[in-house]
Amino acid sequence: MKELQLDDQGLVPVVVQEAETGTVLLLAYMNREALEATQRTSKLYLWSRSRGELWLKGEVSGHYQHVEELRLNCEGNSLLALVRSQGPACHDGYDTCFYRQLNETGATTVVERRAFDPGHVYGSRDNP
Amino acid sequence: MKELQLDDQGLVPVVVQEAETGTVLLLAYMNREALEATQRTSKLYLWSRSRGELWLKGEVSGHYQHVEELRLNCEGNSLLALVRSQGPACHDGYDTCFYRQLNETGATTVVERRAFDPGHVYGSRDNP
Repeated sequence: MKELQLDDQGLVPVVVQEAETGTVLLLAYMNREALEATQRTSKLYLWSRSRGELWLKGEVSGHYQHVEELRLNCEGNSLLALVRSQGPACHDGYDTCFYRQLNETGATTVVERRAFDPGHVYGSRDNP
Repeated sequence: MKELQLDDQGLVPVVVQEAETGTVLLLAYMNREALEATQRTSKLYLWSRSRGELWLKGEVSGHYQHVEELRLNCEGNSLLALVRSQGPACHDGYDTCFYRQLNETGATTVVERRAFDPGHVYGSRDNP
């Protein structure tokens, strides 16, 4: 059993799972600051690698995620966040970011139903 | 929607979830070779970053994971594998690698029950 360790960029991957349904919503990253903000507020904070900034999940859409529990893996190098979602997790309009099946040829098939129209929620702003 | 892209080390993180119960078992990594072996055999192959080699999950313990479905996220940079586990996933003897709660102080508490004694399964071999 190992304690939490961040990688050489100061990050740890976090699997975000809907506590009630068990749906895996997304895989994202936290740095120390995001972890502390999450623990302090019980809202899910992440580190956006593309934007290079702290990211309150739901800050644009209002689809916050309330963190009920954080789990640490055996190796201390990944987290599992059990959350209650205030709305669909994916900026493409699906409940989960894992809405596509990957086929053997490398092609993908959408297997979830869209929960909202991203244009209405995010307007013309670039998606996070 | 983006197609599958590997990171600068040729890897993609994969969340492994028990299909029937929804339990998140582990977070690991695949390279192209592991992905192709998984798709060809329907057994979960991973890339061990610590050992630097292809890793058939269960090759030592016999706790193979049969992959029922692979999902790709919106950004194309993480995978979700829905599996049927032939035994506990964690080499520490738990069904899931996420068997510890992370508390606000950084301390951890074991919240799952041990399913087997790792000494009996792995003997004195170093754990993967």
